[in-house]
Amino acid sequence: MNTEVLIKMITDSWQKQITATNKIFDNLSDEELLREVAPGRNRGIYLLGHLTVVHDRMLPLLRFDESKYPELKPVFLDAPDKAIEAIPSAHQLRQQWKEVNDALSHHIQNLPAADWFTRHANISEEDFIKEPHRNRLNVLLDRTIHLSNHRGQLLLLQHKKE
Amino acid sequence: MNTEVLIKMITDSWQKQITATNKIFDNLSDEELLREVAPGRNRGIYLLGHLTVVHDRMLPLLRFDESKYPELKPVFLDAPDKAIEAIPSAHQLRQQWKEVNDALSHHIQNLPAADWFTRHANISEEDFIKEPHRNRLNVLLDRTIHLSNHRGQLLLLQHKKE
Repeated sequence: MNTEVLIKMITDSWQKQITATNKIFDNLSDEELLREVAPGRNRGIYLLGHLTVVHDRMLPLLRFDESKYPELKPVFLDAPDKAIEAIPSAHQLRQQWKEVNDALSHHIQNLPAADWFTRHANISEEDFIKEPHRNRLNVLLDRTIHLSNHRGQLLLLQHKKE
Repeated sequence: MNTEVLIKMITDSWQKQITATNKIFDNLSDEELLREVAPGRNRGIYLLGHLTVVHDRMLPLLRFDESKYPELKPVFLDAPDKAIEAIPSAHQLRQQWKEVNDALSHHIQNLPAADWFTRHANISEEDFIKEPHRNRLNVLLDRTIHLSNHRGQLLLLQHKKE
């Protein structure tokens, strides 16, 4: 009983952050996405690409599926913003962001409760016996916190409420 | 067994965010805390006060204790930044931030596992029967995500790594 309540707490938190982040992206034009969140810092479009890569890589990490867009990793994870000049369009990234999260959402909703407590892909079966908290649900928790961190920055691109 | 693993996952995440946020505050001088995270946005000192209030209010919300510094609420929760001119010093807020988190940490470490799944102070016993996810552990999860959101903004005050 506690277990199911806990899975709901974490999956709900994830979904809430996704919804809140989508609201920000929806409110920003492609042009506004090209602005930096603060002087000299990441642009909105870089954070959109970065979050897309990190979430895309959750598909194999959670042992759900293969990454959909591995070609985004060198641009939005390995390189910092503005290091690579030619990046995908906001239009394309918005679509990829949506597709990756839809795929994740589908798997998340369908994973049986007990499976959340099995290991994620980056830990061996031997190590997992000693560190059972390194399970799939912990990946979701960690990425929810990561999303919130960048959502706080993306909020700075929005028009200020007067 | 799952329950204890899950409590560890969430309490570890909380502590990790506190440690990471303290590192930022420790690296910023009192003067740097007076800067805005982005043009026209909250100052670092406001976020320090805001997080102190939110965490202080977790003491009664988690049914641990009374708030230590209720006088901070009108300044850092009810009012936006720069609405009130006379605010406490960075020196005082740093100390209050530490005291609040130390108190929380003490209670968090000592709460028996089963008690995490009892209601928080803002939900009635009747409603809690219908919504068992509105428990004390969910408050900690929610505030961990809240902290991460503002930590992402505070990071913008740090000197850029070259």
